Amino acid sequence: MPLDEGTALRAYAVTGIGEVRPGDDVGALVAEAVGRPGADGNDGLRDGDVVVVTQKIVSKAEGRLVPVDHADAAAKVRVVEAEAARVLRRRGDLRITETRHGFVCANAGVDLSNVADGWAALLPEDPDRSARRIRAGIRRRLGVTVGVIISDTFGRAWRNGVTDVAIGCAGVAGVVDLRGTPDATGRELVATEVCVADELAAAAELVMGKDRAVPVAVVRGVPGQWLRDGSVRGEIVRRPGDDLFR
Amino acid sequence: MPLDEGTALRAYAVTGIGEVRPGDDVGALVAEAVGRPGADGNDGLRDGDVVVVTQKIVSKAEGRLVPVDHADAAAKVRVVEAEAARVLRRRGDLRITETRHGFVCANAGVDLSNVADGWAALLPEDPDRSARRIRAGIRRRLGVTVGVIISDTFGRAWRNGVTDVAIGCAGVAGVVDLRGTPDATGRELVATEVCVADELAAAAELVMGKDRAVPVAVVRGVPGQWLRDGSVRGEIVRRPGDDLFR
Repeated sequence: MPLDEGTALRAYAVTGIGEVRPGDDVGALVAEAVGRPGADGNDGLRDGDVVVVTQKIVSKAEGRLVPVDHADAAAKVRVVEAEAARVLRRRGDLRITETRHGFVCANAGVDLSNVADGWAALLPEDPDRSARRIRAGIRRRLGVTVGVIISDTFGRAWRNGVTDVAIGCAGVAGVVDLRGTPDATGRELVATEVCVADELAAAAELVMGKDRAVPVAVVRGVPGQWLRDGSVRGEIVRRPGDDLFR
Repeated sequence: MPLDEGTALRAYAVTGIGEVRPGDDVGALVAEAVGRPGADGNDGLRDGDVVVVTQKIVSKAEGRLVPVDHADAAAKVRVVEAEAARVLRRRGDLRITETRHGFVCANAGVDLSNVADGWAALLPEDPDRSARRIRAGIRRRLGVTVGVIISDTFGRAWRNGVTDVAIGCAGVAGVVDLRGTPDATGRELVATEVCVADELAAAAELVMGKDRAVPVAVVRGVPGQWLRDGSVRGEIVRRPGDDLFR
C-alpha cells in the first residue's frame, strides 16, 4: 500500500509573526499570519486544524514579564524560586520545580531566551484559558473552529534532551482514553491513555525548531474524535499523590 | 504567509503489514509494504524519510517472546521482575523499572497486548542495532537511505497519559544539540538539546493509534542535518548518576 496523502498528518510552520508585545491579541496575530484557505483550499486555516502556540509569545502578549539581570545568576535563581510553588531538586543554579499550575519543570518555566535583554518571561497564569482565548479569537476573525495547544519545552526524568509538551489546550483533547478498546487480538487494552496533546506539541516542535523564531505551527489531519473540550490542567497534570517520583 | 506545503512535515501510517513472526525481516516487510516512489514520485519511500517501527513487531521478529499466563497476575509480575535490571517503584502489580538498556519504564517494557494469547513480548536486546538492521534491509531492497526509529509507549513522571518515545535509532539523530546557537535575540541558548527522536516517535504515534494494528509510520520532511548516525543508548539514555529522580 503506497503512502496515503489523504490520511497523513501534516505539521506546518507559521511564519510572519513578528515580535509580540504585551497587550497583543495572539489569536488575531495567528489569524492574520495564516488567513483563510485560498482559492485552492490548501493554504489557510481550516476547521479541525490544531494550532500550536509556544508559551513565549503567549507570556509576552499577556505581559508575564519580570525584570532580571541576565548577567546575575543569583538574581535569576531568586526569580525562579519566587515563581515556583515548590522546589523539588537543586543542582547548581538549576531548580527542578513544581509550578502553581502543577507542572514539574526546570526553573519554574521562567524563560530567559528569546526575551528582550533585562527581562524574563513567566508562564501564563492559566494556559488552558489562554488557549481558549486564542481559539475564540481565531474563530471570531476567520470563522474556523480549530483546536489550540500552548506548548513549552520541558526536560524529563531519565532521558536526555528536551521535548515540547502541552501546558494548555482548548478544543482538543489532552489525553485520549483508549482503555476498554480491544487491541488487535481482541483482548482489552490497559494503560493506554495516550497524551495526544503532548504528542501534537512534539510534532509541532519539529517544524518550529529552537534556533528559529517560529512561534506557531499548524497540525492538520488530527482525528475528529480528539477535537473536543480539553484541558491540560484537568487531564495531564498528575496529582502529587498519584505520582511515584516527587 | 500561507501554510507552506514544501516545508511541512508529514507523517503517514503504513498499512498492509500483517502479523509478524519470529525470523521475519522487518526491513523487507517495510520495503514491501511501502515500496519505491511511484510514477508520480509521491507514494513510496524516499531518501531522507524516517521510518518509525513500533517495538512490538521488532520484538516478535527477533523472537523476543516468553510464555506467560495472561490470567495469572503474579506470573506476569515474575516475568517483569526477571526482565528488569532494577525495580525503582512498586504499586500493586505495577513495577517502575530500569531495564538493561537503561530505560526507565513500566513493567520492564514487557508487552502483553497485541501479542498472541499465552505470550508476552520483551524489548529487543539492542534496539539501536535493530534499527540499523532495518535501515540496511530497506536500503538493500529499495536503494533508499532512510532513518529508522524503534518506538515504544512509555509513561512519564508528573504527567498523565503515555506517549511514544524512541528506544532505538539509526541514520537519524537522537538528540540535536543547539547549545551555542544564538537565539533570535542574539544571546546564546542554553539547555536546548532537543530530543528529536522522541518527538519523531510521538508524531508517528499520532497516525498509528493504539487501537489499530498499524505498526509502522513514515515521517517525511525531516531536516537533513538530523539525518546522521544516531543512537538512543548513546544520546538519550541518561546515566543514573546524572539523574535527579531515580
